[in-house]
Amino acid sequence: MRIITIGREFGSGGRELGKRLADTLHIPCYDRQIIEEVAKLHGLAPDHVERISEADIRTIYPMTIGRRFYAAPMINEDRVKIAVSQQEVIKKLARQGDCVIVGRCADIILRDMHPLNLFVYADEDSKVARCLERAENGETRKMILQQMRKIDRDRAAFHELLTDKKWGEKETYHLCINTSGKEIKQLIHALAEYARHWFDSQEEKM
Amino acid sequence: MRIITIGREFGSGGRELGKRLADTLHIPCYDRQIIEEVAKLHGLAPDHVERISEADIRTIYPMTIGRRFYAAPMINEDRVKIAVSQQEVIKKLARQGDCVIVGRCADIILRDMHPLNLFVYADEDSKVARCLERAENGETRKMILQQMRKIDRDRAAFHELLTDKKWGEKETYHLCINTSGKEIKQLIHALAEYARHWFDSQEEKM
Repeated sequence: MRIITIGREFGSGGRELGKRLADTLHIPCYDRQIIEEVAKLHGLAPDHVERISEADIRTIYPMTIGRRFYAAPMINEDRVKIAVSQQEVIKKLARQGDCVIVGRCADIILRDMHPLNLFVYADEDSKVARCLERAENGETRKMILQQMRKIDRDRAAFHELLTDKKWGEKETYHLCINTSGKEIKQLIHALAEYARHWFDSQEEKM
Repeated sequence: MRIITIGREFGSGGRELGKRLADTLHIPCYDRQIIEEVAKLHGLAPDHVERISEADIRTIYPMTIGRRFYAAPMINEDRVKIAVSQQEVIKKLARQGDCVIVGRCADIILRDMHPLNLFVYADEDSKVARCLERAENGETRKMILQQMRKIDRDRAAFHELLTDKKWGEKETYHLCINTSGKEIKQLIHALAEYARHWFDSQEEKM
């Protein structure tokens, strides 16, 4: 099975990269579909699931930040259910065949399937520019930066609940791709080749 | 001009990767040749130059670590001469045409030429295994680990003298390649493709 996971900084183009890479390799890319399946399982609206699963996940495991637990217990049953279901959905999708999975700690959740783990990053100016392109009216650089920092902080916190491998540190991944000043589509052919060779050499060893 | 620089952790296979990548792209790879040219310029033995240029370079710029300067001035004329010549040789070689340059802060020295900057790394076990393969009789894992840490520390220190971009941090590079458990030659074709596309998109922008 050839599973590619994509960790990414907010605004780095990781989602687009995952989609394009999957298209080039003629395999599915799972991103929004994970949310939709989880929502269906629990009879919740996809937007509600997305909002919850993107929020600071630490609040569902208050034992890891003890003082906060005592100060304001924030266990939310929806969140626990969603986190557990998300793992199950990711495993189910991965078992169906080769695929790309964007975010959601798939690198850790699927580690027994030996995925190729990519991390996509960029410098702050590039990320802000990318966000501004798709921003709604009135979003400012300052607002985007705040959102970016919060989301990346939440992603790191979520990752660190599942593993001692740090989110965003190169040691956690097989290849780290800087998209600063680049259009994603320019990198795809080379990445697809990289992935093909990486899996070929993996299979030779087995 | 298409210049590729390679930063690398000791034992990660960065030197081999540079050589193979250059061969695949049919361009020269400069590594030992830099040392030889510097040695010739100063009428020194290449081994002496190599030893000096790999030593803790901070000792040639004691002003950056003030207390050490006063405690034990360690300016060594050979070292200063060699560091300066090395930069000149690297610039001269790069101006001759497309090439790969391994180590020696070429990413910083050549920044005005817009090189593609790669960083090659691996987990400790892989690096030790790679070193043991080529080790002389009697070298132990412990000795290799000590050497590895010292050399990487020196490389980081050298890099930080020239720039505030940190050696080994992904933000400093365009692509970071984890060679753990891989043979270098398995990654070369994909990397060569990556480099070609990266430069193509760079030239489109100009």
